[in-house]
Amino acid sequence: MWWVWPALALVISAAAFFVAGRFYVYVRNIPLEAESLPHWGDLVRHGAFAFLKTEYRVLTRFAAAVMVLLFLFFPPIWQSPSLLTNLFMALAYAAGAGLSGLAGIFGMNVATIANVKAASAAKRGISGAYMAGFRGGATMGLAIVATGLSGAAVLYLLAPDNPTLVLAFSFGASTVALFAKAGGGIFTKTADIAADLTGKVELGIPEDDPRNPAVIADNVGDNVGDVAGMGADLFDSNVASLAAALILGVALGQAEFVFCLGALGLAASIIGVLTSGVKEGQHPGQALNNGTYLTTLLFFVLTLAVTLIFGFQLRLWIASAIGLAAGVIIGVTSERFTSPEGRVVRRVAKASKSGPAFTILSGFSYGLLSTFPALIGIGGAALAAYLVTAPLGPGYALFGISLSAVGMLSVVAMITSNDAYGPIVDNARGLAEMGKMGDDVIAVTDELDAAGNTAKAITKGFSIGAAGLTVIALLAAYQEILQQVGKTADFQLLNPLVFFGLLIGAALPAVFSAMLMLGVNRNAARMVKEIHRQFNDIIGLKDGVEGVSPDYDRCIEIATIGALKELLPAGIVAIAVTLAVGFIGGVQAIGGFLAGNILSGLLLALLMSNAGGMWDNAKKYIEGGAHGGKGSSAHKASVIGDTVGDPFKDTAGPSLNTQITVVSLVSSLCATLFASFSLLG
Amino acid sequence: MWWVWPALALVISAAAFFVAGRFYVYVRNIPLEAESLPHWGDLVRHGAFAFLKTEYRVLTRFAAAVMVLLFLFFPPIWQSPSLLTNLFMALAYAAGAGLSGLAGIFGMNVATIANVKAASAAKRGISGAYMAGFRGGATMGLAIVATGLSGAAVLYLLAPDNPTLVLAFSFGASTVALFAKAGGGIFTKTADIAADLTGKVELGIPEDDPRNPAVIADNVGDNVGDVAGMGADLFDSNVASLAAALILGVALGQAEFVFCLGALGLAASIIGVLTSGVKEGQHPGQALNNGTYLTTLLFFVLTLAVTLIFGFQLRLWIASAIGLAAGVIIGVTSERFTSPEGRVVRRVAKASKSGPAFTILSGFSYGLLSTFPALIGIGGAALAAYLVTAPLGPGYALFGISLSAVGMLSVVAMITSNDAYGPIVDNARGLAEMGKMGDDVIAVTDELDAAGNTAKAITKGFSIGAAGLTVIALLAAYQEILQQVGKTADFQLLNPLVFFGLLIGAALPAVFSAMLMLGVNRNAARMVKEIHRQFNDIIGLKDGVEGVSPDYDRCIEIATIGALKELLPAGIVAIAVTLAVGFIGGVQAIGGFLAGNILSGLLLALLMSNAGGMWDNAKKYIEGGAHGGKGSSAHKASVIGDTVGDPFKDTAGPSLNTQITVVSLVSSLCATLFASFSLLG
Repeated sequence: MWWVWPALALVISAAAFFVAGRFYVYVRNIPLEAESLPHWGDLVRHGAFAFLKTEYRVLTRFAAAVMVLLFLFFPPIWQSPSLLTNLFMALAYAAGAGLSGLAGIFGMNVATIANVKAASAAKRGISGAYMAGFRGGATMGLAIVATGLSGAAVLYLLAPDNPTLVLAFSFGASTVALFAKAGGGIFTKTADIAADLTGKVELGIPEDDPRNPAVIADNVGDNVGDVAGMGADLFDSNVASLAAALILGVALGQAEFVFCLGALGLAASIIGVLTSGVKEGQHPGQALNNGTYLTTLLFFVLTLAVTLIFGFQLRLWIASAIGLAAGVIIGVTSERFTSPEGRVVRRVAKASKSGPAFTILSGFSYGLLSTFPALIGIGGAALAAYLVTAPLGPGYALFGISLSAVGMLSVVAMITSNDAYGPIVDNARGLAEMGKMGDDVIAVTDELDAAGNTAKAITKGFSIGAAGLTVIALLAAYQEILQQVGKTADFQLLNPLVFFGLLIGAALPAVFSAMLMLGVNRNAARMVKEIHRQFNDIIGLKDGVEGVSPDYDRCIEIATIGALKELLPAGIVAIAVTLAVGFIGGVQAIGGFLAGNILSGLLLALLMSNAGGMWDNAKKYIEGGAHGGKGSSAHKASVIGDTVGDPFKDTAGPSLNTQITVVSLVSSLCATLFASFSLLG
Repeated sequence: MWWVWPALALVISAAAFFVAGRFYVYVRNIPLEAESLPHWGDLVRHGAFAFLKTEYRVLTRFAAAVMVLLFLFFPPIWQSPSLLTNLFMALAYAAGAGLSGLAGIFGMNVATIANVKAASAAKRGISGAYMAGFRGGATMGLAIVATGLSGAAVLYLLAPDNPTLVLAFSFGASTVALFAKAGGGIFTKTADIAADLTGKVELGIPEDDPRNPAVIADNVGDNVGDVAGMGADLFDSNVASLAAALILGVALGQAEFVFCLGALGLAASIIGVLTSGVKEGQHPGQALNNGTYLTTLLFFVLTLAVTLIFGFQLRLWIASAIGLAAGVIIGVTSERFTSPEGRVVRRVAKASKSGPAFTILSGFSYGLLSTFPALIGIGGAALAAYLVTAPLGPGYALFGISLSAVGMLSVVAMITSNDAYGPIVDNARGLAEMGKMGDDVIAVTDELDAAGNTAKAITKGFSIGAAGLTVIALLAAYQEILQQVGKTADFQLLNPLVFFGLLIGAALPAVFSAMLMLGVNRNAARMVKEIHRQFNDIIGLKDGVEGVSPDYDRCIEIATIGALKELLPAGIVAIAVTLAVGFIGGVQAIGGFLAGNILSGLLLALLMSNAGGMWDNAKKYIEGGAHGGKGSSAHKASVIGDTVGDPFKDTAGPSLNTQITVVSLVSSLCATLFASFSLLG
């Protein structure tokens, strides 16, 4: 009965959709509290959908081109036994892209309602506002995981012997993630930096002042970068981990266990989100973390019970548990580095007293240090999972690593809920300010926002850890695919093709992140120019004359077009370099390339995310009154640190997850092509 | 006649010593031109030797401890066939450390005379001043290479079958390099930052104003960091490349060719430095580069002729030529990124108009981009050398890679001369200012200094490239040693021990460089405190009352003690992590560890060196009048960039070369220990 567990995955996915639907209705039914809120909320909402519309137009063309390539070359059409094989590959890809895109629309839809509702509910206290933010996030979290899991389950049920279809499905999701994460990341930081430079720095007006033409774009950015982008990223990691595990699992006849983990992880998450809540006077940050811990515990108990009852291998269960435990540990250690109450952030704040150069130097140095525990965690988890599962027989050890990735991502619905909560309440804060809802409401939203930032530190570490284990599993899947077509998949470090691949692979994340950051700089410069133009041309705008409002749409348009313009070359470079290495150096060069890409991608992602987080929180710590508080020289230095950190932590750092996944999937898909056609391989 | 080529290496080394001696006499005989110069020159000289004395005291203890360990464990004394083997290992190590230390004293001695003489000669024009600076640098360049080459030759002549002795010799040199480069790097930036913060920023006095208590320490720093440190670093890389090539070459019966390359490279460098000179009105930067090109060309011609005449394998020659060509290419590309006239530096300067955050972001982004061509160059050279030599038979391909490293380092005497020229003329400029020699003299020294900066960009790229190829060769040597003791040396990427090693290895350079940079911050804070104390306590100092002078020695002492205090933990962490990975994960984990260490070490070293160079030159470009020139907001932003870049390019970046070499040598030396005693291996 090989179909039982994938079928159960479908059932639990249906349950998740049901709960997500209920949450959606819950959020929509929260009464509005301020007359002007819908006005501002609608502006943000329309801006967000304007971005999505343009993005999806470009994305559709890009995906269509990839579909044609998949149809023509997977397998090469002149060697293909049946054109249906090629067609299914192309369709699986389209399904992955389409479903991820739909999940993005759905999530954005909820998020842009929930922000208004959270601001409204904040008038009645913290409890309802928390629920609006959290259930808004959970709607997306559940929907995303259920979509990914059920997509994989359907493909597996249709073609249980051909897990490559899941790989194509995953690549579809990855394409969307590349656009959503990197494009959204450029959008959000473009708007943020331009709004700050012109508003806070030049005119000295507050952050969310409606006179600033970039203010709506800034709030839109939170949604397109942090909600839709992050959602697409976790969708991508989740599906990729399933794909890798299925490729290795099908070869061993153990695919059922993969669906068992996915289904029970989603079930645990459903219970976790349903029970989450906060009473008046309670700390919302604790509630978010408790939800994660409860879900993790439930997952351990449920999967252990099922393993024992249904006679799965206990060692496989241990591998998955190792992954999840490592995820929690990595999350908690990155939180220690970036927590606003932590020693490291205080030191960065203290260094700011000597000037901005020292803010940068100390944040950068601690960012470098922060990579160590996380890399040990990822490497240790992979090693432990391998050692535990190796006694089961050949092939099991690598399958064990892939299960640790699946295990780490099993609670991803809960993680996504926590993560999406952050930008929703952040937006609620902005809307409360624009809607002039009063200091009490802003204080409530501030507290919710602070909790979001803490939770974000944990989930960010978690998602980098998960991406790390997933791409290690994808490297193993790549090797498995090569073995299945009868190619030696021997990645000796000292094979110079492998070593050459390692070096190029290590350079790619550096190039990719540099292109994105330079893109933000260029795009912000364009927007600053437009803002200056509006302040000059629109009479009365600077002075806040009643009835005079800026042309918000123009700023959103600039951010959108610029983001796509800057993202495309970076994405194309990543894919083109992969193809060049493969067609020149062959399968062994690609083996090294993937490993080098993973190493330097993880290193840079951890460095940038954590350094950015430290700078952000050091600024907040000083704004809380330390070292002279707002306006002091330490504060000015910390603002510079924060500006450097913005594209680090919100554009380049998190996009690297997607870059390494995209490259890994392209390599796995092209494995047989590289094996047949290469210059040196 | 296996001894002919090593014997020739000794003869040519003797010739190099002779020329170095002549240059020393030449420099010493330049007449002094300003009465006060010897006063300032002596202060710098005494400071530099005070640092060396303290450093060597700590170093001696450290090296003595290592000697005891080598004696006890190489091979483990209870398994050793003869205690003489153990004794020779310890002595070879001592010889490497001692000779590198002596070369450092000699180089520092010449440099601290040449700076005064260059300032003097500048009064009579550019030609003589150039010669003083260049021949001062060349004295050290020739002495260093001759010492290293003859040391390796003597050890080989004594024990032609045991190239491990050269490895121990090389490790001795590496120990000195670790202290000289990282310790000197912390010293120099401590003094530089503290002098700038208190002098330029707080009091608004010029860079080399004698009232500043840190001004002598700052000039001492140029000598201990850039002269002695860099010399020890290149000594280290050169000897390490010889050691790796000898280990692989002895196994193939091809060791002679290694000495042939070393000897002819030194011969070419002797001719190169003898013919270097600049006429009045000529551009000194061009003269420096012409010397490099001439030496390179000579090396190609000489070695090709010898290869053809004496019947060496042409393919081996090609491998060495590939390395040298790659070195030149990497040097030239890094120069394009950091050249003050280049497009990249101009863009960084332009970004500074928007504020310091944009200086940092654009410099960092271009720094990331700059890693790509260099890593392709290193990987491409290794790959090409492998492909060319593989047809010669098993084992030859890796030997080919090691020869490309030897080839790249063959002209190292010329490179070191160019590199040491920089700080000598930089010092000459400082002395000219302190000695009040007038604007004409300062203009001459400024021109010499600018040429030094351009040459430095090339030589820096060169030395990172050389370190890269050398450590790849050391990885191959490590494998060879394992094979010789009958252990399988199979570094499969997907072996989780290897992958675990990769991740830890990738994290180490991040941790090492973070520790050094945080060390600079802490140490600079101590010195700033001392400077404030002096300005408060020494009456008349601030106002420059005649006869009142600060306590320069106290600042030098603080920089010295602090540098050693901050360096030791970083060095110990690097070695301890290596031993931990080896004794836990065994030889395969170490294989991955070395590869990961190389990848991330090269990536971070290139990033930091190049970004630092860009910021430095962007500042200079603005000071030249662009974007409002000195005092403009762009200038202030660029000064912040430069301060961040200082420890990047002069402390952390270049020390990473040494870190990866030290770790590689420790691994090779401990290979058999790890093979016998490890937890998981």
